[in-house]
Amino acid sequence: MAVELQHLTKRSENYSQWYNDLVVKADLAEQSAVRGCMVIKPYGYAIWEKMQQQLDKMFKETGHQNAYFPLLIPKSFLSREAEHVEGFAKECAVVTHHRLMNDPNGAGVVVDPDARLEEELIIRPTSETIIWNTYKNWINSYRDLPILVNQWANVMRWEMRTRMFLRTAEFLWQEGHTAHATSEEAQEEAIRMLNVYGEFAEKYMAVPVVKGVKSANERFAGAIETYTIEAMMQDGKALQSGTSHFLGQNFAKAFDVTFVNKENKPEYVWATSWGVSTRLMGALIMTHSDDNGLVLPPHLAPIQVVIVPIYKNDEQRAAVSEKVMPIVDALRAKGISVKYDDADNRRPGFKFADYELKGVPVRLAIGARDLENGTVEVMRRDTLAKEIDKLDTIVERIPQLLEEIQDNIYRKALKKREEMTVKVDTWEEFKEAIEKGGFILAHWDGTPETEERIKAETKATIRCIPLDAPEEEGVDMLTGKPSHRRVIFARNY
Amino acid sequence: MAVELQHLTKRSENYSQWYNDLVVKADLAEQSAVRGCMVIKPYGYAIWEKMQQQLDKMFKETGHQNAYFPLLIPKSFLSREAEHVEGFAKECAVVTHHRLMNDPNGAGVVVDPDARLEEELIIRPTSETIIWNTYKNWINSYRDLPILVNQWANVMRWEMRTRMFLRTAEFLWQEGHTAHATSEEAQEEAIRMLNVYGEFAEKYMAVPVVKGVKSANERFAGAIETYTIEAMMQDGKALQSGTSHFLGQNFAKAFDVTFVNKENKPEYVWATSWGVSTRLMGALIMTHSDDNGLVLPPHLAPIQVVIVPIYKNDEQRAAVSEKVMPIVDALRAKGISVKYDDADNRRPGFKFADYELKGVPVRLAIGARDLENGTVEVMRRDTLAKEIDKLDTIVERIPQLLEEIQDNIYRKALKKREEMTVKVDTWEEFKEAIEKGGFILAHWDGTPETEERIKAETKATIRCIPLDAPEEEGVDMLTGKPSHRRVIFARNY
Repeated sequence: MAVELQHLTKRSENYSQWYNDLVVKADLAEQSAVRGCMVIKPYGYAIWEKMQQQLDKMFKETGHQNAYFPLLIPKSFLSREAEHVEGFAKECAVVTHHRLMNDPNGAGVVVDPDARLEEELIIRPTSETIIWNTYKNWINSYRDLPILVNQWANVMRWEMRTRMFLRTAEFLWQEGHTAHATSEEAQEEAIRMLNVYGEFAEKYMAVPVVKGVKSANERFAGAIETYTIEAMMQDGKALQSGTSHFLGQNFAKAFDVTFVNKENKPEYVWATSWGVSTRLMGALIMTHSDDNGLVLPPHLAPIQVVIVPIYKNDEQRAAVSEKVMPIVDALRAKGISVKYDDADNRRPGFKFADYELKGVPVRLAIGARDLENGTVEVMRRDTLAKEIDKLDTIVERIPQLLEEIQDNIYRKALKKREEMTVKVDTWEEFKEAIEKGGFILAHWDGTPETEERIKAETKATIRCIPLDAPEEEGVDMLTGKPSHRRVIFARNY
Repeated sequence: MAVELQHLTKRSENYSQWYNDLVVKADLAEQSAVRGCMVIKPYGYAIWEKMQQQLDKMFKETGHQNAYFPLLIPKSFLSREAEHVEGFAKECAVVTHHRLMNDPNGAGVVVDPDARLEEELIIRPTSETIIWNTYKNWINSYRDLPILVNQWANVMRWEMRTRMFLRTAEFLWQEGHTAHATSEEAQEEAIRMLNVYGEFAEKYMAVPVVKGVKSANERFAGAIETYTIEAMMQDGKALQSGTSHFLGQNFAKAFDVTFVNKENKPEYVWATSWGVSTRLMGALIMTHSDDNGLVLPPHLAPIQVVIVPIYKNDEQRAAVSEKVMPIVDALRAKGISVKYDDADNRRPGFKFADYELKGVPVRLAIGARDLENGTVEVMRRDTLAKEIDKLDTIVERIPQLLEEIQDNIYRKALKKREEMTVKVDTWEEFKEAIEKGGFILAHWDGTPETEERIKAETKATIRCIPLDAPEEEGVDMLTGKPSHRRVIFARNY
């Protein structure tokens, strides 16, 4: 087999470099001319579109509608909510002028000093402030509630160190912003959307996640409670993959949003917000892929099946095509995305390597001898295993195989996570375990001070307190203070 | 019928105010706290989503893929293409800093003077520059061509006078950017996408459009040729609804994008770009709606059919529901979007007025007597006409009725446009005709000077030279110079 395309760094050599290589070589994304901003290439964007479509469907099934709010936020809005400003006002893109002019000295265009804005505008790092300023006009009575709105948008955070998909200055995401008449309803909503994210990650991305609640240190700026789905990458580091926040009445108070409740009394509105972003692409890549390239879950693969004809002359090529086209049609009729690649300017071996790199779940190869024997060679990308199937039954076999692959890569990732999750009870064990990577279940005394001390010494943070963590009496590794359940520590992206 | 909701200004009183009222009262959009930027509300966004889905399908059917390029563009990029900088560098949002800090004097947050960018960044007014800077790395050989890419994105132009959907500082759009090996292929692509836009406008929006080419004055900054679809609003003004540009080699030269052609020689790449935006929402609203509110084309209506039960007590309500639910299911099985509104806190008359305002194409009302008679009252939004149909056959009737409405509003708009299109041969006639509104077919000598003089005196511009304009010898109204075909003049949005 030709391997011209496969200049990937091996994971064992340098996991970080392998990731960067893969993003570029699999044609997912590339750096742009603007610091920290990436170009999402068509193949990468096609995966993101599949994610969007499924998530959007799930949001609508849970009663949400889409809307669109402005990109720019008045600077003063950020200051309204005390914690929010600390979290988001620091590193952001600031628009100060609204006009360029020709340089009087002839050096291209320059900022027109006369076009300074009265108040600077910030490119949204997240939209709670502009949205709650809008909701003020939408809400009078409990009859106007709940408001269940989602927005698909670009946002910007001026990150100092960026990595494609994982942490970029501009990224694409969805942000849900809901308004409720009661605290209970808002809390239920926050959990509902956490569960939607969990279901999406596990059933579509085939990425097992731990659902939990964040410690105070890791909470969203302005939230009462932040819920998270945490995934483990192959190198044992955690990737926060989606968050859902119970915001209490913080933003309602900051933007003076009240409603008349059923008892005819004014009350501040209760809120949630929740989001996932193109960061999910990073989770997808790093959970399943291998040294040959991407491994995509069939439920999100833009091309689920590729068929490559093997031929020596035009006659054979025509004979293969004649046999294959009805199979292509039959698979498409089942809703399967199929590419028949009979391009003449690339050899089969080159194609094989390319589709492996691109993570296409199933590859069929059919040659002249297969036509004689009524067979087809089937390769599954997850295991790279080949099987010889009958042409007559391949149309029935494929959907089953796609589900097998979807299931297998999920279970493989789950097994890996289980193997890399350890219980630790002493500080010495902890320091040793954290160097090996993975999730560490340990007792913690519940104080930010202890969490910060652990982070300072080991770079490990509390990823979450799992929602299903069993009660278990213990003592904090460092302080010896009592603890009632274990939390998950890990290094993270 | 209750008319509590209908505080719309009448079109005959003040067309402009009617439009503004309607956008707000039908819950499509509202002004935001940021100058010139709107909030697109869920109902308005649902219509935009239907537009997006259909357009996206049509783009993919013509071989295009989606991708995503950065929001911010280095200032210097705009200067690369001489005409482009004149057209787009003037009024744009300029990012100069990347950090805020707490005001040392305690007055909230202020821009951190130490966080000034080395080079200012512009929020994209359109993306030719950043995209062609990217394509430079994607293209080496004719084998890399064509590149057929589209982007769904927000863009920003610092407009002085804004109107919701029609002209806003930030707007949503798609921008296609294609790269080709030959001039012919690029020109074909520009025309292909013009035809896609035309088909979308006519078949989905039910908006008749004239396809034509722009005069030099109205050309996109940097284009060799700009093609346009021009629609006529009810007040006789033109609305440019979509444009497709043949860019020649201008951007390839500006960003030094060459390829090795089949003759093994380096050549600059040929380009097109094409876009439609949330402005289409304005065209949709102003083409069909009336003094009762929106009239939506069934092909784009988020709710195609609303069913309102009429009842005096819970028993009747239950009886109606029992009869109606199988109808709802049967309609949905046909892919029709149905809302059954049995909310108890709004009277039927209020609901009727609200769904009229929202432009729902078909309304069914069913009461106790209908159950006895096996009938249903059907109102079509376009004509407000009612008919009594049989409950037994309503499921077959609805799809047919939706197509009748789609067809009728298109033909109505076409008739209006034909009535408001006049041929004019003298300057006196022209000045008179332009005051009446509508499209004026007149001879023009082909010079920018004459066009500018006409615009200065009458505010009319050349909307386009129709692609199907018959050859006809004539003379320019003003200069008496020869002309070979009539062009369309109109005042415009």
